[in-house]
Amino acid sequence: MFAVVMCGGSGTRFWPASRQKRPKQFLNITGKGPMVVETCDRLRPLTQDEELILVLGEQHMGEAARYFEDRKIHMLAEPVGRNTAPCMGLGAIYAAYLGCRGPVAFLPADHFIGDPVTFLRDLSRAGEIAVQGSIVTVGIVPDRPETGYGYIRRAPEPMETGDGAAYRVVEFVEKPELEKAVHYLSTGEYYWNGGIFVARPDTVLQEMETQLPGLYEGLMELKPALGTDRFKTTLKRVYDRLEGISFDYGIMENTEAPVYVVPSACGWSDVGSWRSLYALKTDECDAQGNLCEGDAILVDCQQAFVSAQGGRTVACLGLRNCLVVDTEDALLVADQDRAQDIREIVEALKAKGRNNLV
Amino acid sequence: MFAVVMCGGSGTRFWPASRQKRPKQFLNITGKGPMVVETCDRLRPLTQDEELILVLGEQHMGEAARYFEDRKIHMLAEPVGRNTAPCMGLGAIYAAYLGCRGPVAFLPADHFIGDPVTFLRDLSRAGEIAVQGSIVTVGIVPDRPETGYGYIRRAPEPMETGDGAAYRVVEFVEKPELEKAVHYLSTGEYYWNGGIFVARPDTVLQEMETQLPGLYEGLMELKPALGTDRFKTTLKRVYDRLEGISFDYGIMENTEAPVYVVPSACGWSDVGSWRSLYALKTDECDAQGNLCEGDAILVDCQQAFVSAQGGRTVACLGLRNCLVVDTEDALLVADQDRAQDIREIVEALKAKGRNNLV
Repeated sequence: MFAVVMCGGSGTRFWPASRQKRPKQFLNITGKGPMVVETCDRLRPLTQDEELILVLGEQHMGEAARYFEDRKIHMLAEPVGRNTAPCMGLGAIYAAYLGCRGPVAFLPADHFIGDPVTFLRDLSRAGEIAVQGSIVTVGIVPDRPETGYGYIRRAPEPMETGDGAAYRVVEFVEKPELEKAVHYLSTGEYYWNGGIFVARPDTVLQEMETQLPGLYEGLMELKPALGTDRFKTTLKRVYDRLEGISFDYGIMENTEAPVYVVPSACGWSDVGSWRSLYALKTDECDAQGNLCEGDAILVDCQQAFVSAQGGRTVACLGLRNCLVVDTEDALLVADQDRAQDIREIVEALKAKGRNNLV
Repeated sequence: MFAVVMCGGSGTRFWPASRQKRPKQFLNITGKGPMVVETCDRLRPLTQDEELILVLGEQHMGEAARYFEDRKIHMLAEPVGRNTAPCMGLGAIYAAYLGCRGPVAFLPADHFIGDPVTFLRDLSRAGEIAVQGSIVTVGIVPDRPETGYGYIRRAPEPMETGDGAAYRVVEFVEKPELEKAVHYLSTGEYYWNGGIFVARPDTVLQEMETQLPGLYEGLMELKPALGTDRFKTTLKRVYDRLEGISFDYGIMENTEAPVYVVPSACGWSDVGSWRSLYALKTDECDAQGNLCEGDAILVDCQQAFVSAQGGRTVACLGLRNCLVVDTEDALLVADQDRAQDIREIVEALKAKGRNNLV
């Protein structure tokens, strides 16, 4: 199966570990290597390097090249980020250009999967359905009433497939309030939308032609330039006039084509903040719930998350629920409950002209 | 007036800014220079450099020499710290050796004085009384029921002096519980014991002969070695067998000689912790009570004290009552209410053999 790994994020939520030049997908935060490398390696049983297309920001090509220098992965540089719909469209025409006629998995580069075996099984199951010409999403089986994710609602009855459950999708729903999220969890008919889709390139493009004609037109303009010297300039011209829109919002919420969901209990997390990283690593915590990475000394702390990457010793005394991230040139100390608001720090730095730190 | 500045502390309460090699008295924490330099400079109108005797730990001679290289201050190196009584005894015999027959001021090197003019006035008043042969202490007029200091209780009626109030001392009392401290404050008859004494060398030595004969004997052994090649080895031999004891406990609590106190409202602080330093600097705080030194960015913080001396940017988000001290090789993040317990961090570092950091 071909795969398009979407690597365009420029997230600030892992500042100061993440920077514009080295966003989350290039960080080793889940312990084995940069997240994008983990994402690619995870697909190996299903996808050869030659079938792997990485779509990333132009400014990150150098960083990515370092990690994949000996591998035959295809890399496409977006001149500017335009959200997931253009990214997937670009991946789709490139996969077709490479000769792909079967299903393509479209996945974010910066998600964590705790159980890759289950994930790959469910992803190939999605491929088996998608090969018929539908769009199939891998729905994450929720284990809590999370309000930070969008949800996918399935039909009550499973469709008939070879070896297990897949469902028609009834609707894609936005991030819910807590009360709704509790209800979603209780019905068993909702999954988290992890932004993972499987579809044939022509299926994707057909949807774009109907629903996002401007994008489709741009892609058709780009198509004859693939593999030529004109690619880069054409891509820039096309992207310049594209609107930024997500695949969820631009395609999935209004599609009239059949859409299916394959539920997956694969230990997924979008690792969207330091707090959710902490939640992922509870088994590495000490008896007081403290998580320490690097050279740290804690006295009377509880639920502290210390990431000491700055080459110096970090000592903590009497802290509760605190986040300390030390890097060579910047240090963050925050209440863990405020982990979602780290962008305010980044914005304050920008406002002060401290662009070297963002 | 001669002065003996006692510079022997090896405090850990300002870790990581203070280290064994560079304790608090050598730090610039109150803003004008190293505390020991501030202490010496403050005495200038009263005491010439030639009348100034600095008693410090052998290991700090190099550090001190850097600050006073062009000045004719006398420096005496204690081979080992033995608390204030031996230190003052050494200062007393040295002052006598230098020809001093009048009063000597004995003061700690690492205290803050907000109003030096008032302090010097009160110190010279103490000198005027001490010249008659008594021990006079400068009592700090309390402005709050502090439980962290010892107190000096005065007689109800002032003694007759030339130009203002001085009192017989009734007793020296240990650090009180809060209830007692509130009572002390309400009577108006108690002062904080700042460890500042004025007395003639012979008065001090006479008290030592009576109350600390072992110390007196050592000092008499040392006396003929002053100014000779034998000084250093004799000092070491004498100090080796001395017991460590404070002047308060060893002399003042049991003396039968008359002792006087000159009250002083001189804005004194012993700057005993990061928290008390923060309290000293409230006028430098922002509207949320945050105190920032160095390159710091705060978002939604209250009563945060950030000292960024590590050459990197410190960003804080959503903190309450937090202390952040960043230095080149070590970082401290603590609840300000735990500022007194920083020694636990230092002990933990020692236990781990991290002696380069203590």
